[in-house]
Amino acid sequence: MPEHIIGILGGMGPEATADLFREIILLTPAQQDQDHIPVLIYSNPKIPDRTRAIAEGGEDPLPLLIQGAQVLERAGAGILAVPCNTAHHYLPLIQTRIGIPILDMIAETIRDLKKRRPRMKAVGLLATTGTLRSGVYAAACLKHRLTLLVPEEVQQRQIQAAIRNVKGGQRGRAIGEVFESIGAALVQRGAESVILGCTEIPLAFDSGKVDYPSTNPTRVLAQAAVDWALERRG
Amino acid sequence: MPEHIIGILGGMGPEATADLFREIILLTPAQQDQDHIPVLIYSNPKIPDRTRAIAEGGEDPLPLLIQGAQVLERAGAGILAVPCNTAHHYLPLIQTRIGIPILDMIAETIRDLKKRRPRMKAVGLLATTGTLRSGVYAAACLKHRLTLLVPEEVQQRQIQAAIRNVKGGQRGRAIGEVFESIGAALVQRGAESVILGCTEIPLAFDSGKVDYPSTNPTRVLAQAAVDWALERRG
Repeated sequence: MPEHIIGILGGMGPEATADLFREIILLTPAQQDQDHIPVLIYSNPKIPDRTRAIAEGGEDPLPLLIQGAQVLERAGAGILAVPCNTAHHYLPLIQTRIGIPILDMIAETIRDLKKRRPRMKAVGLLATTGTLRSGVYAAACLKHRLTLLVPEEVQQRQIQAAIRNVKGGQRGRAIGEVFESIGAALVQRGAESVILGCTEIPLAFDSGKVDYPSTNPTRVLAQAAVDWALERRG
Repeated sequence: MPEHIIGILGGMGPEATADLFREIILLTPAQQDQDHIPVLIYSNPKIPDRTRAIAEGGEDPLPLLIQGAQVLERAGAGILAVPCNTAHHYLPLIQTRIGIPILDMIAETIRDLKKRRPRMKAVGLLATTGTLRSGVYAAACLKHRLTLLVPEEVQQRQIQAAIRNVKGGQRGRAIGEVFESIGAALVQRGAESVILGCTEIPLAFDSGKVDYPSTNPTRVLAQAAVDWALERRG
């Protein structure tokens, strides 16, 4: 058993999980297979919809989240990454049921933003309605004295619909433009960077098509996981 | 625990593993996360180089292959896919140590070719030197009365070097052209299709840049895994 294995609790959705895996591979300095980091992935798309659970009283995803985390711990993972912003609402409860640490993508993202731009005052958030309702980004921003700007209600419904479209396999420019234009509206209101706070958004958002800075939490999470593994390489 | 989980024993290399995962996602009819298939992936890039073991007496990859297969079986996988053609040399020995079936990418590829073109007589192979030496494709072709055409020695050294370049993260057109041009030479010698018989090759080979048919075993393996899961969906 290699000593330090990154565990990915995914499937929310599967393509976002593949995206995190690819980011980890790309962020690892490697000339041959053996330079790469061992990764265990449990992509369980049957985990009930997180936004429906938080915002509409839908089926609770927690039991399958805990079960998946335990499968990865037993299989040998030394740390967990969860490529779903909305699922971070459940992180403290999952953490009580396993003995390995879970990387907090949201805390890492806000920390990374403040490290890069210490004077930043306000940030915008594109995310699911579940993530907004859960308050996970609001809490992390409060801790770092950052003002969090979120879309207006009509825009938020468009974001949520566009996220569902990406999950359904749609990748047209029209979907990307929903995220890009609502991000621009947040910048207009004072956001100094726009957080792509749902792991489906980086699959459609094109940072080359906008003239404002954006932050990709999936990439921040990948970097944190790679750092964890490389620090332990001896 | 969801009933039917596809297990992927990967890391040989990691990007080829991500490629198989993405093919499985794209081949699954899905409108939402929950329509997708549960997948467990163990990407262990520490598995010793298969070609070095087969062709140069290098370290034996079998112990880590067996260990990885057992991790996936214990974690709940119902079938295994191994996205490394060269590792298929070890499949019979891995199979004796686990209780779940392993999909045979090479047998599936030849079967798929013969199903699509029953009158096919000769096929070309781009693969690692380890895969050629192991004879896995030659045996499958013999069974289906197909003539197997392989590159000449100088070309084979170029293929092996190009595969190592892809593993090192290189994706330039020059690398793709090595595969494309040697494939063309096989077609000139009578091959009716060219098998991209190393999972790194589809990452660089561009089928839009050639005027001959090619076959991607990674995609055939993904389809076999998806079929297995969907047939069991009830």
